[in-house]
Amino acid sequence: MSEAAVRGKAVVIVDVLRSCTTIAFALTNGAEKIIPAATVESATRLMSSLDKGSTLLCGEREGRKVAGFDLGNSPLEYTREIVGNKTLVFASTNGTRLMLKGQNAQEQLLCSFVNVGRVVERLRISSAEMIIACSGAEGQFSLEDTVCAGMVASRLVDALPGVWELNDGARAAISLFETFGADVHRMLRGSAHGRNLLSLGFGLDLEVCARVDSVPVLPVLKEGRITVSDIPRPRS
Amino acid sequence: MSEAAVRGKAVVIVDVLRSCTTIAFALTNGAEKIIPAATVESATRLMSSLDKGSTLLCGEREGRKVAGFDLGNSPLEYTREIVGNKTLVFASTNGTRLMLKGQNAQEQLLCSFVNVGRVVERLRISSAEMIIACSGAEGQFSLEDTVCAGMVASRLVDALPGVWELNDGARAAISLFETFGADVHRMLRGSAHGRNLLSLGFGLDLEVCARVDSVPVLPVLKEGRITVSDIPRPRS
Repeated sequence: MSEAAVRGKAVVIVDVLRSCTTIAFALTNGAEKIIPAATVESATRLMSSLDKGSTLLCGEREGRKVAGFDLGNSPLEYTREIVGNKTLVFASTNGTRLMLKGQNAQEQLLCSFVNVGRVVERLRISSAEMIIACSGAEGQFSLEDTVCAGMVASRLVDALPGVWELNDGARAAISLFETFGADVHRMLRGSAHGRNLLSLGFGLDLEVCARVDSVPVLPVLKEGRITVSDIPRPRS
Repeated sequence: MSEAAVRGKAVVIVDVLRSCTTIAFALTNGAEKIIPAATVESATRLMSSLDKGSTLLCGEREGRKVAGFDLGNSPLEYTREIVGNKTLVFASTNGTRLMLKGQNAQEQLLCSFVNVGRVVERLRISSAEMIIACSGAEGQFSLEDTVCAGMVASRLVDALPGVWELNDGARAAISLFETFGADVHRMLRGSAHGRNLLSLGFGLDLEVCARVDSVPVLPVLKEGRITVSDIPRPRS
């Protein structure tokens, strides 16, 4: 995803394991805003300029919490008691880097299985051309992000048939969703990233990340800040 | 595909539409060797240092033959009368760029639907870790290359079940092959690149590119030259 390609478009950032799931948890549990940082160093530098009492330093490298950080990248760490009314500085390996690449977009919506319905609701009323960007892992294709992107595209096609012009990637993602999307938890456990998280002891995270529409919040990234969308939900 | 990632590995370059199909045609019709060039300029520069009587300048930009070149990127141009015993300097938009990125590989095999069986035969007796690299289109995902990569992976799994460790990309490619591979010509006509070639009047090329195992030749790229593999075929 090039910076020029996203200009003026709606961009959906998909990172199922785990940054977009974790951010949904943080916002639904009352975090005020989240500032994505590309690197551990830039997160630490930014943190030093902010009020320590109301800010938490969060992120992972190779799946584990960064030494000296307040929180890692497990959604279950982001409870109301810990993150309520806090600002989070957040550095994950893949997700936040992708977010920072999309800064020229009209808006960026953060998507994972836990909030896919809220993302689709928003896209249904968007008139902009849209890009669904899969975070992947260290530049490699990831099955879970593509299946989640396929779930978004599939729901949009079902909701408004005939209005979408799908590129090859969207057609492939829908096909992969149809093949692997019936049992998301099983798909996550079989994916490369999921197997790695299992080996690190994050099995419960996979269960949480697999719960479709369990955290109906819409994180929007604008001007370097992720907050809950203030756009009202359309009446169903 | 990074230059470091391919070192010591077997790399399969897939470019169905059309460079790998065209190169298979050229070699089966007696071309002596093919020299891939990244750009029109480098192809032209290289040509000026070679014997004009025995060399042809070949390639396309946006699907069409480059002005002043001898041949474009349509497999049907590469007849025995025209390319027999010739050296071809070849610049395509996506395929040759990918080939040049893989120069640190142990070997690069060029693959499209017309020679997939020969590629699989060779990979069955390879002990190296392998990367199947899809050419795509201007950096975008392409359905036809992924379905062809899935055909390769699927045949390898069928031939030697249980010996392969598949990454997410290989699993997804196999799934897409199972969904779209039963009618390759139809899939090509529906793909973004295929629709573009149809609009340029290359409909017959799509028919030719869809004929699975119709050109049983194995193009191997080593030290900047593509030639027919001199490895004997295993007895069936």
